[in-house]
Amino acid sequence: MPKEKRDIYLSDLPWEEALEKYMAFLQEIGALAPGPPETVPAQEAAGRVTAAPVYARISSPHYNSAAMDGFAVKAALTFGASEASPRRLAVGKEAFAVDTGDPLPPDCDAVIMIEDVHFVSPEEIEITAPVYPWEHVRSIGEDIVATEMIVPANHRLRPIDIGGLLAGGITEVAVHPRPRVVILPTGAEIVEPGGIPAPGEIIESNSRVLAALVEEWGGRAVRRPEPPPAGTELVKT
Amino acid sequence: MPKEKRDIYLSDLPWEEALEKYMAFLQEIGALAPGPPETVPAQEAAGRVTAAPVYARISSPHYNSAAMDGFAVKAALTFGASEASPRRLAVGKEAFAVDTGDPLPPDCDAVIMIEDVHFVSPEEIEITAPVYPWEHVRSIGEDIVATEMIVPANHRLRPIDIGGLLAGGITEVAVHPRPRVVILPTGAEIVEPGGIPAPGEIIESNSRVLAALVEEWGGRAVRRPEPPPAGTELVKT
Repeated sequence: MPKEKRDIYLSDLPWEEALEKYMAFLQEIGALAPGPPETVPAQEAAGRVTAAPVYARISSPHYNSAAMDGFAVKAALTFGASEASPRRLAVGKEAFAVDTGDPLPPDCDAVIMIEDVHFVSPEEIEITAPVYPWEHVRSIGEDIVATEMIVPANHRLRPIDIGGLLAGGITEVAVHPRPRVVILPTGAEIVEPGGIPAPGEIIESNSRVLAALVEEWGGRAVRRPEPPPAGTELVKT
Repeated sequence: MPKEKRDIYLSDLPWEEALEKYMAFLQEIGALAPGPPETVPAQEAAGRVTAAPVYARISSPHYNSAAMDGFAVKAALTFGASEASPRRLAVGKEAFAVDTGDPLPPDCDAVIMIEDVHFVSPEEIEITAPVYPWEHVRSIGEDIVATEMIVPANHRLRPIDIGGLLAGGITEVAVHPRPRVVILPTGAEIVEPGGIPAPGEIIESNSRVLAALVEEWGGRAVRRPEPPPAGTELVKT
């Protein structure tokens, strides 16, 4: 004789249909809509997913910047310089010493590499070749232009994106809340880890595997020892 | 004239040699040795690296377990059963109703699938084929045998490993401390994120990219605004 408690299932659903019903239920209770965005510091946003496009507040570089150590000049002043016809420039008036990364002085639009400079006197340098406008200059917005989109919406932020956000003047970013996944271990035979289970008892390990996977994928896992009393309670945790 | 502050480097090191010197220094101050192991709950150990091999405390299954719904029996009692010569078994004496996962009653070593059972009366079932010993039984240690190694040392624990640990009766695991990486942003031109930098100022974003990469790889990143006073301090943070 079969045991009293044996359940006989006389009908079942194709899994596609069961899944459709389940998803419709989740939709109905609002479990599929992402919650309202959260604002997090850009430098803690790795792995989070943007809730909106992010636009640069400032350019990077945000000033015309020397790309070489040397002398900043107005390129036009160097035109025609050659071995046969070297050009001399007054230091502090026509040529300004700069290191890589320094802002260009006003009216300068090029940098002569230090290696190409002959020092005539403390007041004067000599060059034997011209520089063209914007030579050895990282101009404003070379990496990022203010107002440009740095990352689109629904983009999972990588460490390198954080560099882009910060360089673009962004310190906070709106991200979707991490998806919550509620896991309900069921079965009269399962017992919590710890201690020695009796014959017939199974250590409940599956929910921990699933929870760790959910966290690895960027979600938030909530284990529930019991099914919650009300359907909507499921998504409010 | 070059700027007063310009540094001219008249010698340099091949990078291999510089790296060797740097690694020797880290070795000397103990920065390369992993710290003492930490004990963490198995279910929070995903991504951590084992400090020692982990051996199963209990087998999984830890009892002989029905792998089918049906009747547990001593297989020998069924030998010779056929369509021509059906065998009847007394329920509760020779055949015991079990569900999948139930422990086998003493002296039983096989399970007859419920589908193969003809119910003669509440006291008797009839079968027309024998079962062989251990048929439809998940025997002790089928997945994990007690004392068996579940994971070796220096193994990065995946979510699935956590299932193995818990099923093997392990609730805590010794792991290496997460590698600490200290990042020292340097340069007079760098400024903290936030606000509008002046020309010549660079927003310090590289250390945040590196920190996020270190965390992604399982390490712990420590940003330092200033080089620490003493060399060994570097690894104590």
